[in-house]
Amino acid sequence: MTSDTSSSLSHREAWRLFLLVGACIGILTNTFQGEGAPLIASTAFSGIAFAVTFSMIRWLGPTFLKAGLKGRDMAKPKRPEIPETMGAVCSIVYLLALIFFIPFAFYKDIVAATSGGGNRDVVVEAQHVEHGRMLHRFPHGKLASYLSGLLSLQCIVILGIGDDLLDIRWRHKVLIPAFGAIPMLIVYFVDFGVTHVVVPVPLQPYLGSFIDLGWLYYVYMAAVAIFCPNSINMLAGVNGVEVAQSLVIAVLLIANDALYLAPVTPYPHPATDSHLFSLYFLLPFVGVSMALLCHNWYPSKVFVGDTYCYFAGMVFAVVGILGHFSKTLLLLFIPQIFNFLYSTPQLFHLIPCPRHRLPKFNSVTGLLDASVTEWTVPPSPLIAAALKLLHRLRLVRITRNESGQITESTNLTILNLWLVWMGPMREDRLALSMVGLQTVCGLLGLFVRHRLALLVFREDNRTFGAHV
Amino acid sequence: MTSDTSSSLSHREAWRLFLLVGACIGILTNTFQGEGAPLIASTAFSGIAFAVTFSMIRWLGPTFLKAGLKGRDMAKPKRPEIPETMGAVCSIVYLLALIFFIPFAFYKDIVAATSGGGNRDVVVEAQHVEHGRMLHRFPHGKLASYLSGLLSLQCIVILGIGDDLLDIRWRHKVLIPAFGAIPMLIVYFVDFGVTHVVVPVPLQPYLGSFIDLGWLYYVYMAAVAIFCPNSINMLAGVNGVEVAQSLVIAVLLIANDALYLAPVTPYPHPATDSHLFSLYFLLPFVGVSMALLCHNWYPSKVFVGDTYCYFAGMVFAVVGILGHFSKTLLLLFIPQIFNFLYSTPQLFHLIPCPRHRLPKFNSVTGLLDASVTEWTVPPSPLIAAALKLLHRLRLVRITRNESGQITESTNLTILNLWLVWMGPMREDRLALSMVGLQTVCGLLGLFVRHRLALLVFREDNRTFGAHV
Repeated sequence: MTSDTSSSLSHREAWRLFLLVGACIGILTNTFQGEGAPLIASTAFSGIAFAVTFSMIRWLGPTFLKAGLKGRDMAKPKRPEIPETMGAVCSIVYLLALIFFIPFAFYKDIVAATSGGGNRDVVVEAQHVEHGRMLHRFPHGKLASYLSGLLSLQCIVILGIGDDLLDIRWRHKVLIPAFGAIPMLIVYFVDFGVTHVVVPVPLQPYLGSFIDLGWLYYVYMAAVAIFCPNSINMLAGVNGVEVAQSLVIAVLLIANDALYLAPVTPYPHPATDSHLFSLYFLLPFVGVSMALLCHNWYPSKVFVGDTYCYFAGMVFAVVGILGHFSKTLLLLFIPQIFNFLYSTPQLFHLIPCPRHRLPKFNSVTGLLDASVTEWTVPPSPLIAAALKLLHRLRLVRITRNESGQITESTNLTILNLWLVWMGPMREDRLALSMVGLQTVCGLLGLFVRHRLALLVFREDNRTFGAHV
Repeated sequence: MTSDTSSSLSHREAWRLFLLVGACIGILTNTFQGEGAPLIASTAFSGIAFAVTFSMIRWLGPTFLKAGLKGRDMAKPKRPEIPETMGAVCSIVYLLALIFFIPFAFYKDIVAATSGGGNRDVVVEAQHVEHGRMLHRFPHGKLASYLSGLLSLQCIVILGIGDDLLDIRWRHKVLIPAFGAIPMLIVYFVDFGVTHVVVPVPLQPYLGSFIDLGWLYYVYMAAVAIFCPNSINMLAGVNGVEVAQSLVIAVLLIANDALYLAPVTPYPHPATDSHLFSLYFLLPFVGVSMALLCHNWYPSKVFVGDTYCYFAGMVFAVVGILGHFSKTLLLLFIPQIFNFLYSTPQLFHLIPCPRHRLPKFNSVTGLLDASVTEWTVPPSPLIAAALKLLHRLRLVRITRNESGQITESTNLTILNLWLVWMGPMREDRLALSMVGLQTVCGLLGLFVRHRLALLVFREDNRTFGAHV
């Protein structure tokens, strides 16, 4: 176990990572042929990003501890002090990977645009048209969209690091993703400005087939961008659960993207570009998150920090918004949405909300159990009645004293609820349960998206054109 | 003096800032008329950025101290502990200002592009042409260039904060700006790719009037982007000197830009857009730097951190490179270039280099004097001879023991050299001297640029078209 606690790679790890990077570089150099192969290049970048993140997290551990970026793991018998904010390392590697990827993403366009001769802004000359080549211009709009996504991610990383360092208050925290979303929304406004949405069939007689939401569309996008990062941050507190849920969402989104790119889908499909864009952002995300999970899974050697949660949520918001599938995205956030709704009584202080609501570690059994809020003042009759009802529905567990007054109620998070249902369990089993739940809910969401959506929309856009 | 040490604004300050912000917002709302007035909007944004930065630095002081972002001011009798890394606050406000400014910068283009009706990517319809309006397309290239500048700045801020937190080693530090430069260079490669430069007249018979530097041009741009941030970081160590030198450079660059936009210059001048671009980046920079200087000037209430130095240098690199006047830019860096060259013997360890080379505070006189390197082992004969020669030229001051061996020599920085020349002086006088030196050298540089350049180039591009 020396390699686990040391800050250097074991020989075996070093060799494996070295081989991985070598293979990926080999693949990358081969993609500069013909029209380029951006998806293969993106996969290779993910491999490199994995290796770099894995090594950096290992190497930087002592430096982070020395700089005071550390926290105690309260759910372990010895409460060890381990490095925190490692999400920052992971997100910086990710951002650099995405920046280096730009020439690969646009290789085909560079070739097409420059073969016309020097000035890339002009329509390619007549001889190309004669040779049967499509009219082609460099896709500045696509580049601007890619860059605006990057800007939003960088913004959220800067603010996330600030949050981790300065311990910002909860009510200021929730607005951090709003600032992060601004670059993306502003570039969207300046450069695309498409605010039309498809109207569901039952409403089409009243509203027409499309409706222009105008500025409301920006409010909606901002809401998505605020919700995703915060909801991932809210479903946290157990070793590995932040990263694992993000990985499940990312993999399901990749599967959804693949549906549009697979040979079964007619080509060229109008949504192809959006889903390629989404893959470019998601593949390296999977790479860096896997590396982080290796260190963050039970028993954690590092914490991820709010930086990671904001960053992961913003990656999803960026691909959902700029890829024009934000409604599909929300279908993959069912556990997070439930967790948020379930938490509202505590968030709005109808029920007292302690600073931390993570499951409680029982040092005798070594298991986690639901944490509780103590009612120093008994709840008002209305809230008491509601709690008793929830208790009967097994949506909360309350403890009453001999006079029947509520003295304790479990904290309203999905983690605690799971423990109420399933009884105390070890930390990794709880994290695994969440992974299972996220996967099942996500698959259900995608099924709804591609099958049941036909009930309210005229066609699934996988087989036809409208971006919904 | 209570307001100076407290973490809240005095009534007077609060009112002034409030009035400033009010006036700026008033100006901003008025710029949404006709074709928009981006320069006026940018000035208003600078005012708001000043007010926000000024207040945030004051408010965040205790939070930074609590988070361990602090340092001791060694050049004060009591060595007070004050907040550090305040450059991060200043740069984040700057970045947000630049992001919010995007719609103002492109207002004219949005109006022109959307008045054609919805799809902004098409050439405006015939009726506009008939009404005498110029054919107009949304300038995606300009937007991409603006966004790439922002990306580079965000990159450098993230890495700068990392540097301030983690205390990175000197030889890794110098490469931080290289990473920051990557987004800008990659977008330049993908989107513009202009690598031609004008050849000086004496060389034109051999090389032609233009030469394509190819990848060497990227090496040159990377070198500029690495040099600017590091050279500002190197000329540091006295209260206010980092910010003051940056302000002087920024103001001189603004003056240079104004030359191209003033009524004396023929309009539309081909370099107008580049210099407008430069102003959009520099005006808010002056705003946030002024606010930082208010807190950082002698006696400092906050330190700026490496973050500020990197950030400031990268702002200059971005405007110089994307505005196509990087050679002019270097003419404003004469003191920094001198400081770098003068430092090389210590940087390359020909002469021992202590961790800090800042001037030494004499607690008896309250003045700063040149700091020294002690020669525990006497220097080699060659180096001793060189040092003696430099001593005679008054470029260094050495101390010899009774046997004539060198025991001490002053550290090779421009600050120490100035103290060798002028004798011990108070910290603010030294900082002011540097401001004076920077101004004089900068004005000289601009004079060389616009008058003497005619000796080697066919024309000053202020009156003619080629971007040099």
